[in-house]
Amino acid sequence: MSSSWSATVLTLFPEMFPGPLGISLLGKALANDLWSLDVRDIREHGLGKHRAVDDSPSGGGPGMVLRADVAAAAIDAVPRNDCPLIYLSPRGAPLTQARVRDLSAGPGAILFCGRFEGLDQRVIEARGIEEVSLGDFVLAGGEIAAMALIEATVRLIPGVLGTHASTEEESFAAGLLEYPHFTRPQDFEGRTIPEVLNNGNHKEIAEFRRRQAEALTQARRPDLWNHYEKGLSPFEKKGR
Amino acid sequence: MSSSWSATVLTLFPEMFPGPLGISLLGKALANDLWSLDVRDIREHGLGKHRAVDDSPSGGGPGMVLRADVAAAAIDAVPRNDCPLIYLSPRGAPLTQARVRDLSAGPGAILFCGRFEGLDQRVIEARGIEEVSLGDFVLAGGEIAAMALIEATVRLIPGVLGTHASTEEESFAAGLLEYPHFTRPQDFEGRTIPEVLNNGNHKEIAEFRRRQAEALTQARRPDLWNHYEKGLSPFEKKGR
Repeated sequence: MSSSWSATVLTLFPEMFPGPLGISLLGKALANDLWSLDVRDIREHGLGKHRAVDDSPSGGGPGMVLRADVAAAAIDAVPRNDCPLIYLSPRGAPLTQARVRDLSAGPGAILFCGRFEGLDQRVIEARGIEEVSLGDFVLAGGEIAAMALIEATVRLIPGVLGTHASTEEESFAAGLLEYPHFTRPQDFEGRTIPEVLNNGNHKEIAEFRRRQAEALTQARRPDLWNHYEKGLSPFEKKGR
Repeated sequence: MSSSWSATVLTLFPEMFPGPLGISLLGKALANDLWSLDVRDIREHGLGKHRAVDDSPSGGGPGMVLRADVAAAAIDAVPRNDCPLIYLSPRGAPLTQARVRDLSAGPGAILFCGRFEGLDQRVIEARGIEEVSLGDFVLAGGEIAAMALIEATVRLIPGVLGTHASTEEESFAAGLLEYPHFTRPQDFEGRTIPEVLNNGNHKEIAEFRRRQAEALTQARRPDLWNHYEKGLSPFEKKGR
């Protein structure tokens, strides 16, 4: 009766897992049962002696499409346990840190990794599958996207990052990109650490970092900046 | 004197590679020298007998920062060969399919994978490092992001996908999300394949798919839709 966060991955390439998720921070957390990984081979639900999983697209066109009946059988074999059922796809809603935080607070996630041209639309509708995208680019399959989603989510589970790290000041936590970091040496190729970071005045340091994060966000991500600025009170805006 | 696309990865966890990149489509392409992978351990440039690579952040705060001098030594040991030098970071410019296409047409990429709180800002500036982000979420390190960038890029290299797949109709190629796919069986739990896809009229099928792609993009991604609509001629708009 484990209560750890459970990732279930449906894939045609189970040998890709845990892969990078079995190493470093995520690997330690996996060994310590802070999360669990259940990898299932879609091909076990393939048809006939060749265990076929795909067929050519209706209406013609290149490539192959993953069959609805095969995908449904693979999905239906997994206990739901109130976990969201997610299909990694460039057509989905872009993954955000807010969604990652929600996922990390839940019981886990069931992640369906597509291959070929994609999954038959009817199983997406019939099983109410949520489509989630990493970003506006196309991968060869959903596996690396699933790894990214799992890594982003698991690192937020209490105990995974340990006490010597923080998720409170990082990018997106306050709707801003993170401020720049500096560490020793004091002089790197003639470039020195900003003076304020050495003066020990915590209030000034916090203010400096906030201004840096704001300037960076404004320059690089006007979309995030507009959203952030709308959330500020008139008093805060005036103070800047 | 290979002319294949070269990925160089700088990481503190070289054992993560090739990982999923050594399997399936990408793995076959790697074996066939359609791309190459050079993985380098940043720790080889660490300081002292413990090969230290990080130190506490100037100005205080949790976590550790990757030292500028160590990162610079690791970067400077890699031959540039006109490859872009990219640091995977949530503060970077979001990766797009257009950028992926540019990268795939070039000689390769040098990918720096961060860990801890991040990289000292001074080495980013001193070496003119480009910051690239997968999306608005935070990973435990740059490794899985590097894998995603490599997979997205390598699949566009001629010969990798083979003749039975296409990148012309997929998401973002025309500024739209991709239309839904269908394949046999004709009836899945009472849901049938849209009639038009069975009639063999290629013009009607293309029109149906375009309308589906447009409707999906409009519903899910107003940002992409606005951009797409701006690019249409008045004639095309009237025709819809």
